[in-house]
Amino acid sequence: MTGIDVAIIGVGLVGSAVINQLATAPSPRASLNVVSLQNSKKLLIAAPGEKLSLDGTDSWRKALAESDTAAPSLDELVKRLSEIVAVNKRHLVVVDNTSDEKVASFYPSFLKAGFSIATPNKKAFSGSLDLYNDILRAALQQRDTEARPPLIYQESTVGAGLPIIGTLDDLVITGDKVIRIEGVLSGTLSYIFNEFSPPGGSTRKFSEIVSVARENGYTEPHPGDDLSGSDVARKLTILSRLIPELTSLLPDGYASLDTESLTPAPLADVTDADEYVRRLPEFDEEFDSLRAKAQEKNCVLRYVGVIDVANQKIKAGLLEYPADHPFATSLGGSDNIISFTTQRYTPRPLLVQGSGAGADVTAMGVVADLMRVAARRE
Amino acid sequence: MTGIDVAIIGVGLVGSAVINQLATAPSPRASLNVVSLQNSKKLLIAAPGEKLSLDGTDSWRKALAESDTAAPSLDELVKRLSEIVAVNKRHLVVVDNTSDEKVASFYPSFLKAGFSIATPNKKAFSGSLDLYNDILRAALQQRDTEARPPLIYQESTVGAGLPIIGTLDDLVITGDKVIRIEGVLSGTLSYIFNEFSPPGGSTRKFSEIVSVARENGYTEPHPGDDLSGSDVARKLTILSRLIPELTSLLPDGYASLDTESLTPAPLADVTDADEYVRRLPEFDEEFDSLRAKAQEKNCVLRYVGVIDVANQKIKAGLLEYPADHPFATSLGGSDNIISFTTQRYTPRPLLVQGSGAGADVTAMGVVADLMRVAARRE
Repeated sequence: MTGIDVAIIGVGLVGSAVINQLATAPSPRASLNVVSLQNSKKLLIAAPGEKLSLDGTDSWRKALAESDTAAPSLDELVKRLSEIVAVNKRHLVVVDNTSDEKVASFYPSFLKAGFSIATPNKKAFSGSLDLYNDILRAALQQRDTEARPPLIYQESTVGAGLPIIGTLDDLVITGDKVIRIEGVLSGTLSYIFNEFSPPGGSTRKFSEIVSVARENGYTEPHPGDDLSGSDVARKLTILSRLIPELTSLLPDGYASLDTESLTPAPLADVTDADEYVRRLPEFDEEFDSLRAKAQEKNCVLRYVGVIDVANQKIKAGLLEYPADHPFATSLGGSDNIISFTTQRYTPRPLLVQGSGAGADVTAMGVVADLMRVAARRE
Repeated sequence: MTGIDVAIIGVGLVGSAVINQLATAPSPRASLNVVSLQNSKKLLIAAPGEKLSLDGTDSWRKALAESDTAAPSLDELVKRLSEIVAVNKRHLVVVDNTSDEKVASFYPSFLKAGFSIATPNKKAFSGSLDLYNDILRAALQQRDTEARPPLIYQESTVGAGLPIIGTLDDLVITGDKVIRIEGVLSGTLSYIFNEFSPPGGSTRKFSEIVSVARENGYTEPHPGDDLSGSDVARKLTILSRLIPELTSLLPDGYASLDTESLTPAPLADVTDADEYVRRLPEFDEEFDSLRAKAQEKNCVLRYVGVIDVANQKIKAGLLEYPADHPFATSLGGSDNIISFTTQRYTPRPLLVQGSGAGADVTAMGVVADLMRVAARRE
């Protein structure tokens, strides 16, 4: 049997889309055999030598729900997958579709077992530098002992399926020097400010836009989790660690970073989402005044992430952009946009823009990553 | 010895930049050993078991000029490279930095010899469908017989180092359906129309802008080669062949395509570039009138390529875009911009923008391709 084996952790929106794309992708260049899938409760696992049958329908969902096997501990999962590898003699990739810190902290163990990782989960790459280095070290160690050492792919951790991690990687490995990265990296905050501060100006209230976004499911269950900027801070951490000059800048990951929270101070401790949204209008005047100041200068407001390599400064926060700037004119919906200014791409940057959230585009990045692993390890 | 071997054909601007990047890229993930380089006159080739020493300076240029070995026929080159492979036991990649039709038509032979190809040369992929299919077939045949079958990478054939081919490839192999591709694909025509028809309007003459572009070296030696639109037509052909629904649409490649030439009919046969540029002002009124018509509608003119998948229509020509469209507002210099509307990226497209011409960014795409081959075949 050729191809590679795939073990899927997490079958929520993104996980389901991954399974669907795996089942329906046109004549895959390598055959990707799904050998296990699991949620927090149940495990569905193929016997060694077999694979799960996925037909592009939801039948796996019923099979998983009816499985007699409880979700194993991660240690136990490694054991069972190792038994499969021993028989199948194929390279195995763990696909982590969760946003679970616990799964992320287990990556070094997956790698030590020889398993590659493909994931949209930001936690492992945006947390402590210790975990990050453990991961790199574990992958590196296997290089000397394994014929097919494990790989780590993470395109969907920033901008979902947009070509961002791969592009930054190509710039760096071919010897370009990154000068500045700047971007609208949160789909939710993109939507909110595209509505609140369009190039032509607006009088809509900030609280109202947040409220609508929440009703449409564009925000986290608690909108404060978006307005905190921590998602942007995590993405900046991930990008910065791919830039040689900045690899070790953030010992505590995104927590080390200068992040402007948009949650008004009096609401900082309001854990009840309904109360948070109900009280947000009390602060509309503050947001109105920020917008008015920007509009006076013919500018718009955008919540952006900035990586300034020369000054080793990384920050997430609200900035003003001229109304004819691409972040003002070209952006819409919940688009992400990212601008790479480098020694080669200067003074005009390399720009990538498009939907940076949603199950299908996130899954696409994961499945493309899987195909990259397959191309290198089948 | 690990890594892969690299045989370089063409050491002009792009070839020199490739050599420089190979010599100076930071701790390459795979070692890329240059075993030969050549121009149309001379060959510099390492003995089996050795490699050429490249130190990031221009010393190779002197060594090549002083080489006693005349540039071999392509048949002869394959023989000599095969001798090297027999001893070195490494995978070999031919890097074709020329824009030579003859080298392009030799790709099937390189592949049959087991050599991978990485190239910015558009000719092989935008010419006859027969050659294109020969290339695909040759690569496929080796899959059954070779342990490390050859690969073809061509990122720099469209948009230079911008992530365009790779992105389209990822969309397709993960099962997305391309609906429409639209873009400003010629750096030269981008510059000319960014100057001639900016969002705010302009009164500058078309002929004057072409003339300045030529003096600055932005155009081909004969500007008619840019104004013909054939470069855009070639890039559209390359992209269309990566879309399953369109693979066989253009039997004669770019020549099968609906391409609007900007060369005024009376100048069509003027092969002397100086005469061409001298007479171009006779036609400024025509261009003025096109611009005026666009401006009346608050539009700009852009020379674009469009691939409409559902209608199986591909065309290169001058179109009007609203002054607030990204092709109007976001573009500058000689930027390329390309927009992918797909089943997943709809209604808002995935956009990639940046410099699409120049030795360094073209070389970057080639070197990144080389590293992809190395990752898969070392």
